Amino acid sequence: MNTRTDDHYPTRLDHAIPPIPRIEPGVWGSADQGPLDDEALQSYADGGYLIRPRTVGPEWLPPLSMELNRLGAELDHDDPRVIREPGGGIRSVFEPHLLSNLIAEVVGLETVLPVARQLLGSDVYIHQARINMMPGFTGSGFYWHSDFETWHAEDGMPAIRAVSCSIALTDNYPFNGSLMVMPGSHQTFYPCVGATPDDNYTSSLVSQRIGTPDQDTLVKACDERGIDQFTGPAGTALWFDANLLHGSGSNITPYPRSNVFLVFNSVDNGLVEPFAAKSRRPSFLAARDIVPAGLQ
Amino acid sequence: MNTRTDDHYPTRLDHAIPPIPRIEPGVWGSADQGPLDDEALQSYADGGYLIRPRTVGPEWLPPLSMELNRLGAELDHDDPRVIREPGGGIRSVFEPHLLSNLIAEVVGLETVLPVARQLLGSDVYIHQARINMMPGFTGSGFYWHSDFETWHAEDGMPAIRAVSCSIALTDNYPFNGSLMVMPGSHQTFYPCVGATPDDNYTSSLVSQRIGTPDQDTLVKACDERGIDQFTGPAGTALWFDANLLHGSGSNITPYPRSNVFLVFNSVDNGLVEPFAAKSRRPSFLAARDIVPAGLQ
Repeated sequence: MNTRTDDHYPTRLDHAIPPIPRIEPGVWGSADQGPLDDEALQSYADGGYLIRPRTVGPEWLPPLSMELNRLGAELDHDDPRVIREPGGGIRSVFEPHLLSNLIAEVVGLETVLPVARQLLGSDVYIHQARINMMPGFTGSGFYWHSDFETWHAEDGMPAIRAVSCSIALTDNYPFNGSLMVMPGSHQTFYPCVGATPDDNYTSSLVSQRIGTPDQDTLVKACDERGIDQFTGPAGTALWFDANLLHGSGSNITPYPRSNVFLVFNSVDNGLVEPFAAKSRRPSFLAARDIVPAGLQ
Repeated sequence: MNTRTDDHYPTRLDHAIPPIPRIEPGVWGSADQGPLDDEALQSYADGGYLIRPRTVGPEWLPPLSMELNRLGAELDHDDPRVIREPGGGIRSVFEPHLLSNLIAEVVGLETVLPVARQLLGSDVYIHQARINMMPGFTGSGFYWHSDFETWHAEDGMPAIRAVSCSIALTDNYPFNGSLMVMPGSHQTFYPCVGATPDDNYTSSLVSQRIGTPDQDTLVKACDERGIDQFTGPAGTALWFDANLLHGSGSNITPYPRSNVFLVFNSVDNGLVEPFAAKSRRPSFLAARDIVPAGLQ
């Protein structure tokens, strides 16, 4: 671990090192290659995220909202793809695109797949997918982190050439634990201190402790970048760069927050061995078969 | 406990009972009795809260921001008026108006005391006061509750004729755990289930478990009332009725949230014996000497 001399993004270290400027472009495709115009592409390149209303229309919402519990009930109680809240409720189901035709259809929508291809400038495949629900009253939130930091360290994702698409199934208010991002933070890789524990993912999916920047780093990043919050009606998608710092507070309101979460990786950025973990994570967290996603 | 036949607002019960409409008016004074005009008074009567920018000017902020830690450092480590976060930081200091000339001055400001007198239609005194800080990164928030429910049950406040004035010492954003209220909920008293444990206050000040409405009640209240969030620059005051349902989420941002919190009670509403607790709470939580507050 951390012995690879070819690693541009070292992390999970035994001592702090300075932030590392990103070497990859923020956007790989151009305006003639998809639905996003120059302005949208520039905004995504600068801020690291893009909000796209009506990514799924209202007719999609009731059936999609039922998929989490339907899949959760269908799968064995100890199926590792089902993540439960400390209180027992279902928080996430992984690999829904392989378990549900409905979710597979969402991946292939004209409002989804062409956007992913354009941002990454290539064919794409699903690196990870899940349906999430943060319940009302007890949703516990998630601390600041870059997804790429984990995918690089624990899954062996070589370059920052992946994008997450979070499609809201419920309305996102400022006060129900909706996602916060530090705009522009994707342009910097923040190496983290602390070795990866064995089977870290069994706890990190509920509450992440390893792979988060220290407080001084976050204060500086926040001073420089500020915080934007993702709010909007159900059906809206938030697209965000794999390396964007994000997190969420708790949710004491009665309003749950559900989404379909799709991570697209470039087919030219397939996984290698983990950069900072002893062993690979399961394929439901990090697909190793590169199956290019196709339009419906 | 709960044996008093004269109690219009029974709570801490062994079984659920329906919500009880409030019998007191929302506002006791009139437009000719203070700085608030008819529109502001009507808005407070309807919604149960009022936001007043520049209640303290910018020159007050640096000295006020230092008072929490100054008082915390001055008082003995085991002084019960100092409330600490689970992590050890100072969360609140009670009775600051008796410990600090600066805080006493704030109570007597033209932007503060006359507003309290007008809303309550009488002379007023400080029922409880504190300086609070919710730290960045680890601030844990507070679940939904009505303050009056506690003050009635544990302190013997007879009627809903008190108002809280929370003066922000830091900027309140939507995402740093700022206060949420259910507008109009002050018009209903929500009896709570569960007897008051002995010395409940020693834990309830950090995390309240007793004296909170059940989830079904909160869902209904929220459907009916919605949620408003208190945001605004440092120096802004939130005035809110003692019976307004309020709470706050956690704060994972680097931005702390500090305020001076003053509870004014009408001199005609002095405390009697607790309505649903075995013994009185200490006077730093619930003053029993009615000393009318005066202008500076």
